[in-house]
Amino acid sequence: MTPLAPGSTIGILGGGQLGRMLALAAARLGFDVAILDPEPDCPASRVCALHLCAAYDDPEALTRLARISGVVTLEFENVPAGALAILIGLGVPVAPGAQALAVAQDRVEEKSFLNAAGAPTVAFAAADSPQAAARASADLGGRVLIKTRRDGYDGKGQAWANSPEAAAEVFLSLGGRPVIVEAPAPFRRELSVIAARGWSGASATFPLAENVHRNGILHLSSAPAVLAPGQANEAGRIADRILSGLGYVGVIGIELFELEDASLLVNEIAPRVHNSGHWTQDGAATDQFEQHIRAVAGWSLGPVEARARVEMENLLGEAVQDWPAIAGESNARLHLYGKRKAREGRKMGHVNRVFPL
Amino acid sequence: MTPLAPGSTIGILGGGQLGRMLALAAARLGFDVAILDPEPDCPASRVCALHLCAAYDDPEALTRLARISGVVTLEFENVPAGALAILIGLGVPVAPGAQALAVAQDRVEEKSFLNAAGAPTVAFAAADSPQAAARASADLGGRVLIKTRRDGYDGKGQAWANSPEAAAEVFLSLGGRPVIVEAPAPFRRELSVIAARGWSGASATFPLAENVHRNGILHLSSAPAVLAPGQANEAGRIADRILSGLGYVGVIGIELFELEDASLLVNEIAPRVHNSGHWTQDGAATDQFEQHIRAVAGWSLGPVEARARVEMENLLGEAVQDWPAIAGESNARLHLYGKRKAREGRKMGHVNRVFPL
Repeated sequence: MTPLAPGSTIGILGGGQLGRMLALAAARLGFDVAILDPEPDCPASRVCALHLCAAYDDPEALTRLARISGVVTLEFENVPAGALAILIGLGVPVAPGAQALAVAQDRVEEKSFLNAAGAPTVAFAAADSPQAAARASADLGGRVLIKTRRDGYDGKGQAWANSPEAAAEVFLSLGGRPVIVEAPAPFRRELSVIAARGWSGASATFPLAENVHRNGILHLSSAPAVLAPGQANEAGRIADRILSGLGYVGVIGIELFELEDASLLVNEIAPRVHNSGHWTQDGAATDQFEQHIRAVAGWSLGPVEARARVEMENLLGEAVQDWPAIAGESNARLHLYGKRKAREGRKMGHVNRVFPL
Repeated sequence: MTPLAPGSTIGILGGGQLGRMLALAAARLGFDVAILDPEPDCPASRVCALHLCAAYDDPEALTRLARISGVVTLEFENVPAGALAILIGLGVPVAPGAQALAVAQDRVEEKSFLNAAGAPTVAFAAADSPQAAARASADLGGRVLIKTRRDGYDGKGQAWANSPEAAAEVFLSLGGRPVIVEAPAPFRRELSVIAARGWSGASATFPLAENVHRNGILHLSSAPAVLAPGQANEAGRIADRILSGLGYVGVIGIELFELEDASLLVNEIAPRVHNSGHWTQDGAATDQFEQHIRAVAGWSLGPVEARARVEMENLLGEAVQDWPAIAGESNARLHLYGKRKAREGRKMGHVNRVFPL
């Protein structure tokens, strides 16, 4: 793709905090941003040139977005496939593309793709009945994690089962929808890798982050993570296999399990900028939001080396009320999303605490 | 002032590149931004929650701005005094205030204030006739720099005269408006200091920058500047005298001359974020735009130490067409302003080239 000139418009599906931070990064590079989001006062709506307030599959809004945008990208993976088809049909470049979304929207497709691409995962099976869930549990050794194939996030839509009988019950408790049944990952810690690939096929991988979840939601990320010998290379190889396997364009987030023997399994992929990459805003030569804009706009990718060590903490719900104390810390960089209501568990902002490397 | 909570609106008079970068910094802290600027497609209009497109002294627009804003600030010093009076009359906090603007709008007031505050300048005299200009030239030793008292910027509205006769001619060539006549400053180099003061009176001074102008327009800033012993303290003292003398709130830019004996004179002050402070975006613990927002919003000031060495280069006019090469540099951070037309000499963007300290 010919690099998109500054002054062009970048379209973004979704105007939450990721869309907002993408819009801020795009503005810094001289782009205008158009956001499509059905929420009238969504966080990105207040930092963009145009907010199309309509359903994601609204043909009129999609047509307008396609007409004014040099490229369209997205902040979340659950964009209706029909919306993407409309945009692509109108001839506007869309990145990441339909294949990446199809894979990311279905946990069975995702793990099947990962294994085919040479990116190891836990053993798993698909199930669409209580009997199938029980059988999968038995095959995988009894204790399993069961997740809906679609639409889960931040620990929602999943539960553990310790036996085939329990697996059948969990299947029903998740609404009787198709599920993936996963063997447990005996992991020592959770890592993630944020990587990017451009239209030319060039790719770049940020230093890894170590992540701590709380109640299924990311709580802390520290980067660069301290790694065992060879782990950085292994993570880079995994990222490259996934990126090239998907013909991917943009930034991707890849969650990893580090097992007791220091080997890495892929837990899941997010075809977008990722919460565990927020540290790059204050710790890397390029931040993940600018990197994504560069990638989808056909620019060269930016340098990815760490310039500082960062501990990123999510500010969930009422925790955002600590902003005065955080603003007074000598090494804290505060990022708030402009959300009006601090509901429990809601991502209201994050703080990057910056230390010398 | 009670610290303004995230989610509040900050009003900004002026929507050029400084207003745009202020808006981006405010958004990062969770604020909404309302811009008042008569230009329909001004750079900041595309990154703010609300653009009031009206004259700066439009009473209706000012009333609306005052009603929705927790504080109003500005990106340029030549705001009509009447506009400020309307806002203050409506009870909204305005920072910096009327005194700082009055001083900054008139070069004679400015230098008189500076000397009274203990901030040294070149010798000068006011003149409002060709005869007075000639007399001032004679008094100041012949060769003088003559500037209109008001409205000059980027080297416009000023000229050198080598004799009393020439001074009288320059006076007329500048339109016969009141002028300031200045003795030459035998300076070795130009430095600047960016400082901030909060509503509480607390202040903080960034490391100094060394500046190179070309055709009267800032071309390069390098920071932190390498200084002679005592210079940093002296600059800090000068900044503090100016800030407290003006009862100032916000970020101020102070241009300095370094003389042959390493002493410092104040050339001029800008009651706003300043082009020579753009290096802070990629080289300081807090950038000047966030610092300004923190100050006017009643937050604690952020830390000001350098985290990297930065060479800032302005991209003027067609120089912005080099963006693809600059984006490919390994240590360049590109900042573009979204201006539609690259007129000669127009500030289209800047690049911060980042090096380890």
